Amino acid sequence: MQQLTIVKIGGKIVEDPESLAAFLKDFTLIAGDKILVHGGGTSATLLAEKLGIETKMTEGRRITDAEMLKVVTMVYAGLVNKNIVAQLQKIGIDAVGLTGADMNLILSGKRPVKEIDYGFVGDVKDVNAPALSGLLNQNYLPVIAPLTHDGNGNLLNTNADTIAAEVAKTLAFDYNVRLIYCFEKRGVLLNEADEESLIPNLDFELFQQYKSEGIIQGGMIPKLDNAFRAVASGVKEVIITCASDVNTGKGTFIR
Amino acid sequence: MQQLTIVKIGGKIVEDPESLAAFLKDFTLIAGDKILVHGGGTSATLLAEKLGIETKMTEGRRITDAEMLKVVTMVYAGLVNKNIVAQLQKIGIDAVGLTGADMNLILSGKRPVKEIDYGFVGDVKDVNAPALSGLLNQNYLPVIAPLTHDGNGNLLNTNADTIAAEVAKTLAFDYNVRLIYCFEKRGVLLNEADEESLIPNLDFELFQQYKSEGIIQGGMIPKLDNAFRAVASGVKEVIITCASDVNTGKGTFIR
Repeated sequence: MQQLTIVKIGGKIVEDPESLAAFLKDFTLIAGDKILVHGGGTSATLLAEKLGIETKMTEGRRITDAEMLKVVTMVYAGLVNKNIVAQLQKIGIDAVGLTGADMNLILSGKRPVKEIDYGFVGDVKDVNAPALSGLLNQNYLPVIAPLTHDGNGNLLNTNADTIAAEVAKTLAFDYNVRLIYCFEKRGVLLNEADEESLIPNLDFELFQQYKSEGIIQGGMIPKLDNAFRAVASGVKEVIITCASDVNTGKGTFIR
Repeated sequence: MQQLTIVKIGGKIVEDPESLAAFLKDFTLIAGDKILVHGGGTSATLLAEKLGIETKMTEGRRITDAEMLKVVTMVYAGLVNKNIVAQLQKIGIDAVGLTGADMNLILSGKRPVKEIDYGFVGDVKDVNAPALSGLLNQNYLPVIAPLTHDGNGNLLNTNADTIAAEVAKTLAFDYNVRLIYCFEKRGVLLNEADEESLIPNLDFELFQQYKSEGIIQGGMIPKLDNAFRAVASGVKEVIITCASDVNTGKGTFIR
């Protein structure tokens, strides 16, 4: 099977032109097929603020009413996505920027209201593997914005980590998939204040232990849940690292 | 050769959900391959206003400084483009929303500064015919936002009428191309106040005559210049009509 690397990058990296350019240079040097999934929350919050729209978050997830949906559609699918695509074209990479609505790539369902009404937030139902592998076979590099659609005309805001994991799981039937989560730290740390305390390898048992001990907490838990689910579904390895280590082989490995 | 219909729709139609839905229903009933090119200027002006950014127009063209480029990127490539794509997916059409940067579809050059500095505005240099016909052959319906790129990492704001004409001219080598410009009126009118005064057929001589007599004026002139250039370059016919007549065969025909 062919190698496929799916990289998810967070907001801070993609929203600063210099760090984005440095990242894209390293990213494009990764051998084999590649898919890039990006965030953009910082810019979305900033635009919302300028428009007088209040940003409400619950456990790191954005509450997305109709007005906020417009904001994230503009920022994720427009500003962030197209700037990444233009930068990739500049370095000779034939990128194509897409949401889950384009080519019916990612179908989702509006999250049911339980304790919290997340609004126009989608839970992934189906990833269109033939469309994605079709693009890869034609040497396009898909750049995916964290928006999906419900098939009924509605765009839905969808967590970028989850999109990356779902795409990875679906394409694991046809590719040797490696999933790389880039964020601010060098990987999963034993001590958040100490960048040298990197955990090089993490298995499910150790994850449970660190979680119960409070060593791993907060936003890292859903990220690792996604990672372990991906590995359980056939993804060869998940690497949690920082953007500047996207192609150095450093970070926390989950297999 | 295969039939290809390229439709350009203006801002007012795409920005109202109800009129958009009605238009898309008619549009998708057109037989053969289709490409949709859209505007979005009204929403861009509205967003700019909310953000305290002044909209400056010269002869119907938007002066696009760095801040305005962000606005049009968000509105055209994000809000307008993705809502059209989601609506098309709803009615079972496998649409893909793209700018000129995606798949390197439309390369442009920043307009040189003469009397007026248009800012980040692009003049089309090259349309990627293989990429577009590749999409059409795979039964995707391309939805093109009026943004191009310069190959050097910059997105450029580009007139949607011009994009439609340039795409039509390039694809005229491989398809029987029909180009339909939808706008507010039923076509080119002898008397702008009288919707019944439609000119059903217009040739270049008559256009020159009407122009010299002041019957055809304003924004219609660049639209018709685009139309006659397209026909001169092998496009079979250009139809100027209103959105509700996109599939009725009514309007002003230029052959």
